[in-house]
Amino acid sequence: MEKEFHEIIDLISKYKGLTKKTSERLVVDLINNNSKLDEMVKHLKEIKSNFKVCKECFYIALNNDLCDICLDDSRDDNIICVVGTTMDAMNIEKHKKYKGKYAVLGGEINLGKNIKPEDLKINELFERVNPKTELILALNATFEGEVTANYLSKIANLRKIKTTRIAKGIPSGGMLDYMDESTLEYALNNRKEITGK
Amino acid sequence: MEKEFHEIIDLISKYKGLTKKTSERLVVDLINNNSKLDEMVKHLKEIKSNFKVCKECFYIALNNDLCDICLDDSRDDNIICVVGTTMDAMNIEKHKKYKGKYAVLGGEINLGKNIKPEDLKINELFERVNPKTELILALNATFEGEVTANYLSKIANLRKIKTTRIAKGIPSGGMLDYMDESTLEYALNNRKEITGK
Repeated sequence: MEKEFHEIIDLISKYKGLTKKTSERLVVDLINNNSKLDEMVKHLKEIKSNFKVCKECFYIALNNDLCDICLDDSRDDNIICVVGTTMDAMNIEKHKKYKGKYAVLGGEINLGKNIKPEDLKINELFERVNPKTELILALNATFEGEVTANYLSKIANLRKIKTTRIAKGIPSGGMLDYMDESTLEYALNNRKEITGK
Repeated sequence: MEKEFHEIIDLISKYKGLTKKTSERLVVDLINNNSKLDEMVKHLKEIKSNFKVCKECFYIALNNDLCDICLDDSRDDNIICVVGTTMDAMNIEKHKKYKGKYAVLGGEINLGKNIKPEDLKINELFERVNPKTELILALNATFEGEVTANYLSKIANLRKIKTTRIAKGIPSGGMLDYMDESTLEYALNNRKEITGK
């Protein structure tokens, strides 16, 4: 039995967010409670039938080819916030302040993991831009985020598209003595003048 | 869309081993890859059809009402190792040293979580014992494990069933200066004589 059990754990633990340990707990619980297992199958089928990926920006769409944000005419088409993942866009949406559109790339360029520019929705992004577009690059402040931002800004510059990057520095509530060297160095070099008015 | 998304995340994060964050990652990935979602449904159906709970000891059984361990005549029926969960029994099985049978209780008595003796497979355990049985209590060395062990040993004593408890103390490789007070106190009080032979 152990062999077959570990085979199924290997398959289940390949899913995003699941580890070997959490998969074991989940599967043992589902074997002990077949009604929970049936419910999970039902939930998965609901997810499949209700949620789609937006054809325009690749955010999540509900029962539609386009997402609520792309369908919302009150939002500015000329501002496109470029994010790595759906969760990043959802995090920005939480604050209900941003009134432009999104472009979800589906990841960041990562040569170690063999994620190349052509694996991301970069062509689809530039099909949407016009000379009036502003691209806001809201990518992670990691090596992969920097590489992806540089790649996108080069293409945008060639096409003379205005491109900005969200501010980097000390996060709100951040304690200086816990801050890493590179954040501190960047924050010092990019200090802003206080006019005192 | 966010409302419906968070509703489904609330449902998915109720499963064992899944948190809100890991459920979000999983669901977003499944929305983006419907073939992965279909595969997951397939795996769940395989789990349901292949794995059962053993009618005798409540360990996992493969395509059968009884598990491999209960079916194995070479293992000693008169020694029953009592564990809280399936994973505990699987961990003991890894070492391939134990040659008795098991009884999986399905948890431990936990009044805080409203898990009472009658919620565990305790009656089922005592239906299997006879005057020749030895019960090895292999429960967690936690408050709940102690409560459960005391409860079981009282019933066993009344029935004059031999009951042992797995040894407590410093774990192999354990560093004394990292050990908590209660482990150290127990280990000192329960020291074993070295005969020097």
